[in-house]
Amino acid sequence: MTTRRAQERTAMLPGNLHVPEDCRMVSEVLERIGDKWSVLVVVTLGDGPKRFNELRRAIASISQRMLTLTLRGLERDGLVTRTVFPTIPPRVDYALTDLGRSLLSPVGALGTWARQNHARIVKARVQFDAKGSNRG
Amino acid sequence: MTTRRAQERTAMLPGNLHVPEDCRMVSEVLERIGDKWSVLVVVTLGDGPKRFNELRRAIASISQRMLTLTLRGLERDGLVTRTVFPTIPPRVDYALTDLGRSLLSPVGALGTWARQNHARIVKARVQFDAKGSNRG
Repeated sequence: MTTRRAQERTAMLPGNLHVPEDCRMVSEVLERIGDKWSVLVVVTLGDGPKRFNELRRAIASISQRMLTLTLRGLERDGLVTRTVFPTIPPRVDYALTDLGRSLLSPVGALGTWARQNHARIVKARVQFDAKGSNRG
Repeated sequence: MTTRRAQERTAMLPGNLHVPEDCRMVSEVLERIGDKWSVLVVVTLGDGPKRFNELRRAIASISQRMLTLTLRGLERDGLVTRTVFPTIPPRVDYALTDLGRSLLSPVGALGTWARQNHARIVKARVQFDAKGSNRG
């Protein structure tokens, strides 16, 4: 039974992550996805294209510089497009590409997990730190 | 039709991430999950408890110090347990908690996305950098 449970767990895994190539791919992707600003921009663009200032207002805590850098990184990775309309002043729209849109589902699953389990993690940290100060 | 598509996309999202509280939760969780070593340890423990040296062999590229720090962080977050058996020398086992095991599924989804789309991201980067050097 233990073996069957182990097999079931293994079946859920994203393949063999110990293969160096896989490990490198996942690391590279996590460098982008693990960045909270990238995640917030992708999620915010999830309900349609936005201009720079709309994004800035939606993600209230982001600085102008950080939003510029984040959008540049997402554009470079092919997750976001930047379209300039030749109006006066020029209008610049940011939108998810198909690739960027495909990221909404796994990022959403992680967001759901985070919301469901955040309180447990905070509680575990408090308990761990209390044990540590008893030991010391 | 555009409206319906927008609604469908919104329905996939992890709730309203613009609420500061949600944003903070997701950021805190990403600080852990976005770290590639944590992800690799969680995935490696996915097929059962392991000793320190077994983990080190499985994740060949990790240093002893980094593995120690990563395990400590995961234990603090309540994702991994550390069990000392009073043998000589003492045996120490690391295992996923229920909370840690619940993370395998969303992390697996992200890993699958990474594997499926890594080539596209690499191609997008090359194209973006080529455009940049033409511009400059």
